Amino acid sequence: MRRLFYAGELAEEIEITGGDAHHLARVMRAQVGDAVVVADSDGRIARMVICSIVHDSVHLRRMEYLPQTETERTEVILVQALLKGEKMDFVVQKAVELGAAAFCPITTDHVVVRYDAKKAAAKTARWQKIADEAAKQCGRSALMRVAQPASLSALLQDAALLHAPDTAIIFCYEEERTQSIRTVLRSVDARRIVLIVGTEGGFSPTEAAAIRAAGAQSVSLGRLILRAETAALAALAVTQYELFDI
Amino acid sequence: MRRLFYAGELAEEIEITGGDAHHLARVMRAQVGDAVVVADSDGRIARMVICSIVHDSVHLRRMEYLPQTETERTEVILVQALLKGEKMDFVVQKAVELGAAAFCPITTDHVVVRYDAKKAAAKTARWQKIADEAAKQCGRSALMRVAQPASLSALLQDAALLHAPDTAIIFCYEEERTQSIRTVLRSVDARRIVLIVGTEGGFSPTEAAAIRAAGAQSVSLGRLILRAETAALAALAVTQYELFDI
Repeated sequence: MRRLFYAGELAEEIEITGGDAHHLARVMRAQVGDAVVVADSDGRIARMVICSIVHDSVHLRRMEYLPQTETERTEVILVQALLKGEKMDFVVQKAVELGAAAFCPITTDHVVVRYDAKKAAAKTARWQKIADEAAKQCGRSALMRVAQPASLSALLQDAALLHAPDTAIIFCYEEERTQSIRTVLRSVDARRIVLIVGTEGGFSPTEAAAIRAAGAQSVSLGRLILRAETAALAALAVTQYELFDI
Repeated sequence: MRRLFYAGELAEEIEITGGDAHHLARVMRAQVGDAVVVADSDGRIARMVICSIVHDSVHLRRMEYLPQTETERTEVILVQALLKGEKMDFVVQKAVELGAAAFCPITTDHVVVRYDAKKAAAKTARWQKIADEAAKQCGRSALMRVAQPASLSALLQDAALLHAPDTAIIFCYEEERTQSIRTVLRSVDARRIVLIVGTEGGFSPTEAAAIRAAGAQSVSLGRLILRAETAALAALAVTQYELFDI
C-alpha cells in the first residue's frame, strides 16, 4: 500500500499539497478511492482514503488508526560527528534505511568542517530533505528527525536526549580494545539506544572521558579500522539486528 | 605496527618494490631495523624486519610467523549482483572494511549494466585495486579476492564456492517475509558463509528458485526496503557481528 508522511496532526480529513501530492498523484499514480497509509512526524499511522485529486492537491479521509509495530515503539538515535562533503549526506540516507529515529550532528575537536549559523541551518534543512526522501523510498512510517549541529559539550548536557528513562548510550570509540558492541548490546535492556560515532579523526582523550562521564559505554566495532561512515552504518545495522531482529 | 601485503610466498627474505615500497618508505616513513607485519594473499602473517631501503625497493627479513586469529580462519564471501556506477566501487570498499574474504560479482536478470569480456576484466582489476587500498587502510592482514563477473547460473554451478565443507549460503531476498537473517545466522554452524545480495531490481522468481535449489536459505533483512548497497553492508555487518563478534 502507498505510504505518505504528513507534518501536521492526522485529522479526520487532511489535504496534501506540493511535492508530496505530486509524488502521490503523478509518480505513484494514486486514484480517488485508493487507500493510503499516512504517518505523522510522531510516528502515528492511519489508513486513509483519497477523496479528491485536483491538480497537486490531494484530500484524504481517515478510516482508522493503525497499531504501531514493536520496532516503532523503540528507537535508535545516531549522534554523528560532522564528516566531510558527501559522506554526511550518505550517512543520513543510510541511517534512515537502517531505522534511526533521529540524527544529531555534532562538532568535536577533530571535526574539520566548520559551519556558521546560516550554513548550519542550510545543512540541516538539506539533511532533513535527504532523510525524508529516503524514508519515502524505504517505506518508513515515521520520519527521521535531523537536529541542528551542536557541540559535543552541548550534546552531553542534553538531559532529554541522554538521560530519558530507559536509555542506553553506546559510544563507538576507536581506542576501546576490550569491550565489543556485542557484549554491550546483549546486556542492555533499554527501549532507546543513543549511538555516538566520531569523525574521520576520532575523539580526543578528553572528549572520550567526557562522553563516558555522561554515562556512555565505550565499545569496539572490531579489529578492523572502519572509516567513520562505515562505523555509523555497521553500528546501526548491528543494533537493529540485536534489538529489533533487523 | 605497520602492515604490508605481499603477493608471493613469505620467504626468509623478500623484496618489496613499486607502490607498496613507496607507501612503506615514503608514506609510512619506515626505517631500516623497523619491524613490519607482512601478510601474503593466503592470509599467512609474519613479523619481518627491514634490512634495507634503496629508492623504492625495500628488503625484509622474516623473524617469525604469527598465529592467525579466529576471525582469519573463518570467512564470509559476498556474492553481489552488479550495481550501477560508483555503487559497486563503494560496496567493494565497504566489504573489505567489514571483513569479506572474497567478492564475487554476478549478472542477474535485473542487472542493468552489461560488460563485454574486456570491460569485465578492466572492472575486476579496478575493484581489486580498490579492495587492496581499502585493506591497507583498515589494517587487514589478508586481501579480499575479487572474482571476474560471472552469470548467476555459472555461480550456482561453482561447487568449490557453494558446496565446500562447512559452508552456509544466505540469500538476501526482498520477497522473503518470514525468515529473518538473525534466525538463520543463529542456527548456522559453518566456518564459511556465502552471502548473496541482489541488484537494484532484486531477483526474478525463477532466479530465487534456482538459488534456493542450490542450497541457499532465503532471509529478510527487515521490514524496511534497503537499497542494494545498504543491504550488502547490513548483511556483512550483522554476519560479522553474529559469527565473529564484529
